Amino acid sequence: MANSMKTAIFESARHMAVEEAPKPTVEQPDDAIIRVVRACVCGSDLWPFRGINQTEEHSENSGHEAIGIVEQVGDAITSVKPGDFVIAPFTHGCGRCRACRAGFDGSCMAHPDNFSMGAQGQYIRFQHAQWALVKVPGRPEDYSEGMLKSLLTLSDVMATGYHAAHTAQVKPGDAVIVLGDGAVGLCAIIAAKMMGAKRIISTSRHDDRRALAQEFGATDNVAERGEEGVAKLLEISDGGADAVLECVGTDASFQEAMSVARPGALIGRVGLPHGQQISGEGTFYQNVGVYGGPASVTTYDKSVLLDAVLNADINPGRVFTAEFRLDDIQAAYEAMDERKTIKSYLILD
Amino acid sequence: MANSMKTAIFESARHMAVEEAPKPTVEQPDDAIIRVVRACVCGSDLWPFRGINQTEEHSENSGHEAIGIVEQVGDAITSVKPGDFVIAPFTHGCGRCRACRAGFDGSCMAHPDNFSMGAQGQYIRFQHAQWALVKVPGRPEDYSEGMLKSLLTLSDVMATGYHAAHTAQVKPGDAVIVLGDGAVGLCAIIAAKMMGAKRIISTSRHDDRRALAQEFGATDNVAERGEEGVAKLLEISDGGADAVLECVGTDASFQEAMSVARPGALIGRVGLPHGQQISGEGTFYQNVGVYGGPASVTTYDKSVLLDAVLNADINPGRVFTAEFRLDDIQAAYEAMDERKTIKSYLILD
Repeated sequence: MANSMKTAIFESARHMAVEEAPKPTVEQPDDAIIRVVRACVCGSDLWPFRGINQTEEHSENSGHEAIGIVEQVGDAITSVKPGDFVIAPFTHGCGRCRACRAGFDGSCMAHPDNFSMGAQGQYIRFQHAQWALVKVPGRPEDYSEGMLKSLLTLSDVMATGYHAAHTAQVKPGDAVIVLGDGAVGLCAIIAAKMMGAKRIISTSRHDDRRALAQEFGATDNVAERGEEGVAKLLEISDGGADAVLECVGTDASFQEAMSVARPGALIGRVGLPHGQQISGEGTFYQNVGVYGGPASVTTYDKSVLLDAVLNADINPGRVFTAEFRLDDIQAAYEAMDERKTIKSYLILD
Repeated sequence: MANSMKTAIFESARHMAVEEAPKPTVEQPDDAIIRVVRACVCGSDLWPFRGINQTEEHSENSGHEAIGIVEQVGDAITSVKPGDFVIAPFTHGCGRCRACRAGFDGSCMAHPDNFSMGAQGQYIRFQHAQWALVKVPGRPEDYSEGMLKSLLTLSDVMATGYHAAHTAQVKPGDAVIVLGDGAVGLCAIIAAKMMGAKRIISTSRHDDRRALAQEFGATDNVAERGEEGVAKLLEISDGGADAVLECVGTDASFQEAMSVARPGALIGRVGLPHGQQISGEGTFYQNVGVYGGPASVTTYDKSVLLDAVLNADINPGRVFTAEFRLDDIQAAYEAMDERKTIKSYLILD
């Protein structure tokens, strides 16, 4: 094993690079070093790429989604061993604190360093690996590329879409509105269908995404925005949705969510918030609830999602509509930024 | 029957009066006229009394809690008849719209005029009475004064406290923090206990309220406010409550609620909001949810609370610690304003 690896680097807004870097090593007893087999670009990676988030130049890539092979583990790790095939969630819960036990490992109370970074590279150091890593049976070569894509979504977007539906407490028979037509919004449609929603209304203006929304279970689509969009959503949902899945994170999307929720509905929000303000009065009189945050990735993978993917009950990997090599990381970001692909898939050697 | 009655009038900040007014009559087919037997003063009535809410001078009293005898009904009313003893909820749900069917009659979609006014008087016109009124077996004279007090709390405060616990989704074994030591906060303690909370932490600085909180089921009390209070609440709740019942409505109380909720917890808020701002970022990373609003009074009364009161399983009427006649309405408001009583009870002739 060489001591260096290739990894993506955030050079500056609109510029990603690939360079050699030291291969990570076990630093803590509960670390695992993972050789990345497949990774990808997240909608949240576009915030620094677009220069909206202030991010240090020439710094670690914000990638946080990977599947791979365990290469080395710290002394405290007994749950996986070198050679195991694993999903590397973006969250790193302990599985034992009160938040994790309540099913909120995305906000683990034991691990302030609860999120991944640097997954767009050949190796990652995965901190707090004991409970958080999700073991997959067999080896990557046992699976089709389509199945690998679906397994990769279990590191973030499928679990995050599921979190939106779970915190919005979607029930059988519900009318559900999904705001956002990125990979998370599309996966939220899958989740709403899994939970028995009867009517699922997507909100896409792009033909490819609308088609995939329909394939995933959307029964209606509203392409209009603003007042016209709200009016149409209220009409289709008979006065407001029983659950609103907010998968964008902007204030505009959040205000729209409040406008299309029926009284007593919950908004499950999973888009990273950018300046949302929730007025106390605005939600109070309608009894509209707001719930959600970073997803419970490990909890959902182990309890529901891994089985659903392996049984081919769901096929979230369809959100990857373009494939790239690590060396083409700039093109992978650009394709997502320009909406030429829903989500960019990275194949590592 | 005379055509006039005595009723309380909001004269101006700090001044309540009693005067003769026309007795209300059936105006709509779904109206019921109720002769008020017992009424009371609500914490929310103190907002105009204190001059914080801008309220028209010499206007109808904001009272919205009563028990009484049905005097007359409109043509559409088949659920009650003259002579029936009823609880008059402050909400007026239809029982049929999607919000009511989902258990949120406090935000009924069919009735924009969903709230009561004028209950501090000899008679009230109760709009949309068909589903909303709650029939009580027998006649008022069949019950002790203590039981009448408990029945009266089912028009608002007991149901509102229950709504806080219900929307915070209190579960058996939970550690629950209750913010607010008014009648609603105290009733929220009863509700948390009904739902199986193991640890219930009240936050009173007044001996009488703290004693009643304990009687109702509080296991601990934190009298401190500000940073010291938050630190103590976090310590007692082992890092944050599983559910926070916010029964005040001020921004300070709301910010405190967010500080003492464990990750993944729900805040059930029922205090009328006064300038709350919920930061999108503030609640997101902790997965803290915010739910609540006007209570589902009729739903809870018919399903749970009336039986619990009649069986003497709960005794929420204990919040009435001073009794007044309607003519003494000014004294009834002052006693609550000065915290000489937890809640002022009005006996009508």
